[in-house]
Order: sequence, then structure tokens, then C-alpha cells
Amino acid sequence: MPDDHMTPDEFREYGKEVIDWIADYYKWVETYPVLSQVKPGDIRSGLPPSAPQKGESMSAMLDDMDHLIMPGITHWQSPNFFAFYPCNSSGPGILGELLSAGLNVQGMNWVTSPACTELEAHVLDWLVEMLDLPEKFRSTNAGGGVIQDTASSATLCATLAARERATDGQSNHVGADHSLVAYASHESHSSIEKALRIAGIGTDRMRVIPTDESYAMDAHELEDQILRDKAEDFKPFIVYGTVGSTSSGSLDPLESIGSICQREGIWFHVDAAMLGTAALCPEFRYIQEGLEYADSYCFNPHKWMFTNFDCDCLFVADRNALTRALTINREYLGDFPSKSAGEDNYRDWQIPLGRRFRSLKLWFVIRYYGVEGLQKHIREHVEMAQEFARWVDDDPNFERLAPVSLQLVCFAHTAGNDITKSLLDSINASGKIYLSQTMLRGRFTIRISIGQANTRKRHVRAAWELIQKTARELAL
Amino acid sequence: MPDDHMTPDEFREYGKEVIDWIADYYKWVETYPVLSQVKPGDIRSGLPPSAPQKGESMSAMLDDMDHLIMPGITHWQSPNFFAFYPCNSSGPGILGELLSAGLNVQGMNWVTSPACTELEAHVLDWLVEMLDLPEKFRSTNAGGGVIQDTASSATLCATLAARERATDGQSNHVGADHSLVAYASHESHSSIEKALRIAGIGTDRMRVIPTDESYAMDAHELEDQILRDKAEDFKPFIVYGTVGSTSSGSLDPLESIGSICQREGIWFHVDAAMLGTAALCPEFRYIQEGLEYADSYCFNPHKWMFTNFDCDCLFVADRNALTRALTINREYLGDFPSKSAGEDNYRDWQIPLGRRFRSLKLWFVIRYYGVEGLQKHIREHVEMAQEFARWVDDDPNFERLAPVSLQLVCFAHTAGNDITKSLLDSINASGKIYLSQTMLRGRFTIRISIGQANTRKRHVRAAWELIQKTARELAL
Repeated sequence: MPDDHMTPDEFREYGKEVIDWIADYYKWVETYPVLSQVKPGDIRSGLPPSAPQKGESMSAMLDDMDHLIMPGITHWQSPNFFAFYPCNSSGPGILGELLSAGLNVQGMNWVTSPACTELEAHVLDWLVEMLDLPEKFRSTNAGGGVIQDTASSATLCATLAARERATDGQSNHVGADHSLVAYASHESHSSIEKALRIAGIGTDRMRVIPTDESYAMDAHELEDQILRDKAEDFKPFIVYGTVGSTSSGSLDPLESIGSICQREGIWFHVDAAMLGTAALCPEFRYIQEGLEYADSYCFNPHKWMFTNFDCDCLFVADRNALTRALTINREYLGDFPSKSAGEDNYRDWQIPLGRRFRSLKLWFVIRYYGVEGLQKHIREHVEMAQEFARWVDDDPNFERLAPVSLQLVCFAHTAGNDITKSLLDSINASGKIYLSQTMLRGRFTIRISIGQANTRKRHVRAAWELIQKTARELAL
Repeated sequence: MPDDHMTPDEFREYGKEVIDWIADYYKWVETYPVLSQVKPGDIRSGLPPSAPQKGESMSAMLDDMDHLIMPGITHWQSPNFFAFYPCNSSGPGILGELLSAGLNVQGMNWVTSPACTELEAHVLDWLVEMLDLPEKFRSTNAGGGVIQDTASSATLCATLAARERATDGQSNHVGADHSLVAYASHESHSSIEKALRIAGIGTDRMRVIPTDESYAMDAHELEDQILRDKAEDFKPFIVYGTVGSTSSGSLDPLESIGSICQREGIWFHVDAAMLGTAALCPEFRYIQEGLEYADSYCFNPHKWMFTNFDCDCLFVADRNALTRALTINREYLGDFPSKSAGEDNYRDWQIPLGRRFRSLKLWFVIRYYGVEGLQKHIREHVEMAQEFARWVDDDPNFERLAPVSLQLVCFAHTAGNDITKSLLDSINASGKIYLSQTMLRGRFTIRISIGQANTRKRHVRAAWELIQKTARELAL
């Protein structure tokens, strides 16, 4: 009966069809145009104006996936996806997400599924060891980790915890203190400005600190600005450091920034959304030198660690600072008295009340690859990016515009912004590869970000050849 | 090789095992204790202290699902789950989520997967018709819908849009205006207080409006409070109405509240997270009378509409009011000039930057059941709740403590709070059913919330018999 629930045996049948559909997708993903070729409105025009009154068959829906939806997909899982930052996935990541969807528990409280809370706390403790993060971030110490949807939410949570601490909790009751000021570099992520806006601090209170030639925050400028603000009776309350900026992959000097924060009693949040995963490899841990000063830290396994979107890991040194900012109790929400390690109610560690069982996919990914398997792939990506950078350096028509911190190469055509922009547009329109852009000191910049799970050397080589060939055609 | 990626054919094999695992789970879910019986720390104690160095097999991981994870699951998908609010799921919901995980696109911009944006805008337009919502919420008019994770985030977004409008955008730059005041009833959800705290308004600026005997907001009290606040130079900026409060299922008088908001130029947000789904049935649309006054509205298909968590639908009458509050542009985020219907960048409609392809599961659910299939199940749930209420009314040992708006029954033992609390604890400890609690005018109250997809009359009957039997045992 079409209007009744799907039975377990029907689910078994249709589920296997969907699994085959996804397996085939990964088999052929390389053959699709990376960037969707549709025009605005194309997808909607294929959809009926109203919902059906009677139920439809799963086979009709899977057909529509092929014919109506697929033309409108930009293939983040293509090995030829080099835009923005990767959002890579993997078999174990997808299957962990599937199990989470199957159980469909809502883990707001410990009691609403103890495994959801305890596995999350435990796997995030594993990550402290895997990434060699400060011990204070462990749930068995005063800190702990929590999975957020994205680094934007992690940044907002850190901002609220810092605001709460700086105002002794008064901001919760009487609103944000207008003397609070925050600090981030010109290269920092848009989510910082967004968090300050959301939190009622106001973007005028964000001090934009200049960067050095490597696009890293200038710690002397930071220190000077803090002193000027204090002299004018502003209250510095948070500094945001970045490990791998979105624009150029730059690395802020955490050690210098952190020691200033410690001396001044300012909350130090470190956003390693993109590059944090690299710390799986001891040789790349230089990116997080000085992290012991941080009050909070986040990185995104959903970017570079083969864990399906969404999965950001936020660590705090003092979990009470976070929960003081975010706890609202009500009788109907239920209660659980313990506040010890891994037994807390995670609803008090995040903006939303409800939450999915996201640690399953992370647990599956870590176990399936093992630490050594993850390291292997990260090293391959970094090696490919370094090789790409050498090709750029060796070609007189191109210029590299930022140091290659690990997996991102920023470059431009020497013929200037217009040619570089035309080059990017032509390449993306071809559907063969997808690259994205930024501006660096007034230069229109092409970014090639290498970290898709299935990207091999041949894809990077082909990308470079396409870039060179397209440039030759345009320069004629 | 365990440290390499899972191949499409391996995914095919393991994926089908996972599908079988989930199908079996739904076959047997009724036999599990609903409330997990583990003690704090039990789950963690079964997990190794460190992540594995070498990759492990999928079969080891699926074994651990059975032996380590399942004892720590509270079964939200059991037909005997009557606590909080339902978080129901369905075959098409799970498979839609699986497809979303398989494609793993990140839909921050239209261009990063046009289908992700256009399907979402389109399906939310379908819902305007399906639920008979005001036409202004359509993306083809000045409004539009967007999927948020939860109603908490929807409430925060509405608050930020209202704050932006009330301050002519100034709050974005110079921080929240301390004269802003907000209004919600005593029965309103904790997420409102949380949103006001997050947004830097402060919880002291939340005016808690008294309720009438049905726990609905008293509109006269609201009006008086607004006038008092204006006389004291406060700026009323938002009123939150509730359709189905968490505590008692109460319905705020939207028409009276809305006309006050319109007259005073105050943003009116309506939270129908739980009961909104009922408007699929014309006979239940009385719950949203007056919704034409609302500036924003949300309901959760992940609660009562068989759509996997997370899926909250937020509608706004003026999409520009929302995006003015939340847009931050950067060159590296890419750009898309059009701001017309269904072609916008949804990153500007939400707190996080990145987003999943959540409309797939919603599309699948609506199509699989059809409008008539969904209506059928909603009617069944409402009928079961009404019958349960009659049983309570007919038993002199029990007392009903609130009107039954649709699917929630609030009741207590006549022997008082201590007995009622003991009764609830004993029932939940049995693992046979799971109920939750609230406080209503000083009375400890048991809530039975009926809306799990697989709940049939026999489950509700058995629940009532267990409640009666346990009460008899305790009262001895």
C-alpha cells in the first residue's frame, strides 16, 4: 500500500538498490562534469508544481535522481574537484552516516542515548592523542571535545564562551558588553565576523590585524592593538588564530599570539578547520606549535579526513566555560546530574538542542583506515601539492602568490587579473576540473586545493596541463 | 589493503550488510528496552583507550555495533517511545539521507550544487501548499523556506533578522541594542531564552508573558507589557508564538498576538516545531489560525513527518530581512549575482557556512507517502492520543493536567507529586516504554507523546495498562 510505512523487507530491497546506485556513482564520478552545467531555474523547471496526493514508487524516485537531480550536482567527490576546500568522503564515512540515520537517535542528553554521548567523548579523546593536541583538551581532564556541524558553529560557541568568561556571565543576562573587542587577521575566515555579528558584539568591534608577507597574523601588530584598546577602555576578550586560512592556507604564529593572550587574560581560539588533519603526521605538526596556549580549538574531519559532512571537532580546555554560556534548563528537557567526563548532556555544548549520532562515522573512518592509513593519504596529498607548486614556479607564464603551507597552491597568470579571471572561468566552464578563487594583495588568484579522496597524481598532472593549454589559448 | 580507500565494489558489499543490519533493527526494535539500561561510563569502558594504528575490518566494526553500541541506545524508533517529542523516521527518510551522504555535496552556494538549492526551495514551496501556509512564504513571492538543523537554529535566525530590522542594521555593526525587548509565554521553548542570550540581547530582556488556563499566551497581558515597555523607552522587537508547546502542547492565540505585532511593528515568529505537521490535515488547521500575521514560521518534519533528524523548515515572509542579517561576503566564498527565487546562496540564510543536501530526504518522504499517506498517519496518532486521554479521564486515580491539543497527553497520579515521580521512574526503569516529564503549575506531570512511526493502538493500550499496574503496585 503506497500510503503505508515501508516494511523492513521493502527497506532491505530498496536500500540495496540505493547502495548499488552510490557504488556506481563512485565508479563513474570521474566522468561527470565537475561543475554542474545547468542554468538557474533548470532544476526547478523539471519538478512538478505540487506535491503528489498519492504515494509514488521508490523506482520513480531513483529514476528522478538520475534525470532531474544529477545534472544539478557539482561533484565534490570527483577526483577533479580542486575548489574551495575538499569535503571528502569514504565508504566507512558513508556507512557510519547510514547507521546513524538508521538508528535516528537524538542525543541531546546522555540518557537519550548514552552511546551517542560516550562514543563522541571517547573518539574525541582518541583524536587528542592522534593529533598530539594538548592534554587539557581531554574529557578526562577539565576539557573535552564535541562534534559541531561546522567550524562556523565552533567559532560561535568559542565566542560565546569567551564573552561569558570576560563578563563573568553578565552578558547572558543583560546582553553583550559594548566595550568587548575581538582580534583576527585580515586572512581569517568570514565565520568570525559572522559570529561577532550574531553574538551582538558587532563587527565594528573586530580588530583586523595586518599580516606579514606569508599572510600570517603579525603578532606585534596584535600586541600594539590590544594595548591601544585597553588604553581606550575597551575589553579585549578573544583572539582568533588560524591554521590554514581559507584564502591562502596561511599559518598564524600560535606561540607568539598565545603568549600575548595568556599575559592579557584573553580567550585564544584556534581554527584549524582545514589543516588540522595534517597533524596526524608528526612531520606536519609544526603547524600547531603553540597550541598549548589555546582555550579552544577546532578542525574539520569533514574536510580532509574522509568523514562525511558534517563533522567539525571542537575542543575546549575548560568545559565549564562552554556550558556556562550555553546551558538552559527546563524540567521537560530532563536532567542528568553528573557532569563528569563523557557523561554530560551535549545539548549544553552547542547552539541547537537536538543532535545526531555523528561520532559513528568518525569512529568508522578512524578504525577503517587506522592512523597509518590516514597518514598515508595526507602525505600523498601534500606531496601532490608540493609538486604542483614546482610546476607553477617553473613556468614563466605563472606566478605563485603565497607560500604552500601544505595542500593549497595560490597562483596567477603573469598577464594580470583579467587574464587570470578569464582563465579560471574557461577552465571551470569546461567541466573538466573545478578550481576557485581569492584575492591576495589586489591580485586575482586561482586556488588549487588538493585533498579529494580519489585524487591521484594523474588528475593533478591533467589539471596542470589543462591550465597551461587554456592559458595558451586565451593569451593568443 | 586496509589502509587504502574502500573500492566501489567493497562499498557495494559492506553497504548491503549495513542495509540488512538496519532492516533487522526495525524488525526487532520493539523487543529492545526503550530506555538504555547502561550506567554512566559503561559504554566507554568497552572502548580501547587509543585509536588503532592499522586499519580494521568492517565486520569487526559491525560486530561492535551490536555488542558495544546497542546496549547504549535509547530507542527513539521503538513504537514504545513516548518521551519528549517523537523523532520519527521512515524507509524513504533513511534512504534520502543515505543518498545525501553518498553524493556528499556541500550546498553553501547555488553553484556548489544547484540541485541542492533548487530542490530545497521547491519542496518548501510544496509545503506552503500542503500545509496551507500564507502565500507570502513562497520563494516565488518575497519570502521563502530554508532547511535548518533544528527549531533552535530557526529561532536564532528569526531573532537575528528581527534584531537587524529593529535596528536598521546597526546591530550588525555596533552590537545588540540594549533597549531591545522580546516576548514569549512561560510555556515557550528553552531555545528562545538561548537565542536571546546568544544574540547578545540578554535573557533579562525576555518578557515572560503569563498563560491562561490552557497554557496559551494571554494576549491582553502581552499587550499591556508592550505598552509598559514602550513607556519606559524599551524597543519591543520580537514576539514568539508557539503552536504546540513542549511542556503541554498548548496553542498560543496567533490571531490576537499577530494583530498586536502588526499594529506595533514587531517581528512575529511562530514556532510550530512539533505540531506544524498536523496542518497537513484540513481539520487540524485551526492550530495555525492567524499565521498570516507571522514574519517567520518553523516546523520540524524530523519530529512528526517521518523525515530523519535533522530537518527543520524555516519560512520567512521577507527573505531579504533574513539575508541582511546573515550575509558576509568574501572573494574566496565565490559569488552568484542572482537573488531570485530558489537561486540564492543558502549560506546567507543560516548560521553555519556549509550545508548538507537535506531536502533529498524530505522530497523522498513526501513522494513516498503522498499527501494522503501522511494525513492518514497523523490522524491515527491524534486518534490514539484522544483515546488515551479518555482513559485517563475515566480513571479516578489519574488526573489530566492540560487540554489535549493533538498528540500529547499530560497527566498525574492523584496521590501527588512524589507518587507521580516514582511512577514515572519505575515505568522508565522497566525498559518497556519511555515517557518524560514536565511541571505544570507546581504539579509533577507525566507526558505521553504519541507520534512514533510504528506506534499502533496495541502499544498505546499496553502503555496505559503498564501505567495503571505500576501505579497500583506503588500505591500499596
